[in-house]
Amino acid sequence: MNIPRLHLETALAAGRDVQLGKDDTHYLVTVMRRGQGDPVRLFNARDGEWLAQVSQASRKSAVLSVSRQLREARPVPDLDLLFAPVKKARTDFIVEKATELGARRIRPVLTRFTQSERVRIDRFMSIAKEAAEQTERLDIPEIAEAATLDRVLDGWDPDRALIYCDEAGDDPDAQWGGDAGRAGPALEVFQRLATGRTAILIGPEGGFSPDERTRLRSLPFVHAIGLGPRILRADTAAVAALTLWQAVLGDWA
Amino acid sequence: MNIPRLHLETALAAGRDVQLGKDDTHYLVTVMRRGQGDPVRLFNARDGEWLAQVSQASRKSAVLSVSRQLREARPVPDLDLLFAPVKKARTDFIVEKATELGARRIRPVLTRFTQSERVRIDRFMSIAKEAAEQTERLDIPEIAEAATLDRVLDGWDPDRALIYCDEAGDDPDAQWGGDAGRAGPALEVFQRLATGRTAILIGPEGGFSPDERTRLRSLPFVHAIGLGPRILRADTAAVAALTLWQAVLGDWA
Repeated sequence: MNIPRLHLETALAAGRDVQLGKDDTHYLVTVMRRGQGDPVRLFNARDGEWLAQVSQASRKSAVLSVSRQLREARPVPDLDLLFAPVKKARTDFIVEKATELGARRIRPVLTRFTQSERVRIDRFMSIAKEAAEQTERLDIPEIAEAATLDRVLDGWDPDRALIYCDEAGDDPDAQWGGDAGRAGPALEVFQRLATGRTAILIGPEGGFSPDERTRLRSLPFVHAIGLGPRILRADTAAVAALTLWQAVLGDWA
Repeated sequence: MNIPRLHLETALAAGRDVQLGKDDTHYLVTVMRRGQGDPVRLFNARDGEWLAQVSQASRKSAVLSVSRQLREARPVPDLDLLFAPVKKARTDFIVEKATELGARRIRPVLTRFTQSERVRIDRFMSIAKEAAEQTERLDIPEIAEAATLDRVLDGWDPDRALIYCDEAGDDPDAQWGGDAGRAGPALEVFQRLATGRTAILIGPEGGFSPDERTRLRSLPFVHAIGLGPRILRADTAAVAALTLWQAVLGDWA
């Protein structure tokens, strides 16, 4: 019943033979123990999902014959996740969850209080590929290079709503309730949004700096959301905000 | 600005001296490097949150003097999370997130396809305590002993709605769309629920067995919810379902 599922950039079409790369070969042959004649599902954003059979397999290389299309290409909703990288395990988790929750693009953003110095885009891409394979997506999210928040805001497309979650770690003065009352409950803010094109911005564990908050609040496309009376970690806030957006405006309805 | 926050079962009242246990002492003195005169916040479900000062501190023991109440006790909404334990890191994550997302009780449930043999309740309790301290909760969730799904259902209070999420890993035949159409989008199901007393049940990565599904569907207090067109891992499904419940019926509104 469990047919392995692999994302391949190669064009997929009936009758084509495709050669797997090293990592996919290792996964298919060594981890999943598949061999000649076994079915595999292949997919990419352009061609959708296809059934294929293993025609040659060794520990070092594998060739698959593509037979028929299972699903046509279908993009996820136009939702970006911007987040300030946090500790490694939690950052990995954010990338995995954003993929499962159907974010189209993942953009690491460097803010004043971002503690992670190094952003490993190649690592994010491999996590996103594996999560897309598991979650039955037909594409993998685009992973952008890290950029400073100021640069990101300088180049913002004003037709895309920017939803800002400021979970300020354990600083009680910075929690939503006391924070000038600008943030509405996420569900209500999403229900009032006029555009479907959205980006969700998650701050670092220390929250945004006063300057960053001031700039965010001055921008007409920015909306602040609250995620309840408890302080959420950055990874929790990311999952919660993506979930609520998908339920209200995305493909969960 | 950052005042450490500790959950203590000891009664909290103005003028009391309280002695910290070994783990809390280690956290306060060695990890947080706090010493005599430093402020600390103490809380529990009965007495709410109190300000205290360190009156004695060494690496081995610490005594705090409670000065004044900061917040009165306030319970989280009446929401249980029932989940089938999965791999260790993901199970730890579910306990942490359920605490942040305001579940009142966490109940490990053993289902047919549950792969984790050993459920470490003491470990769950320490994760829940730490998460409650971080998330500004005034209580820590109750952690129940693991029980089989059949036993849990045998003893069910019919006045509590049981919301069942069946994310069946990577088996496409078991995903929501093809699954007899009984599951409604989570947001709609929650909006129609007549009772606020709810439990959310998350299956293991392999989903529920046909027998388990049949029994769940036969029960009048059970409602199935869908969480979108992609397959979610158990930990993601837990966070998504808790989030939507809090946004619609809980204390996020």
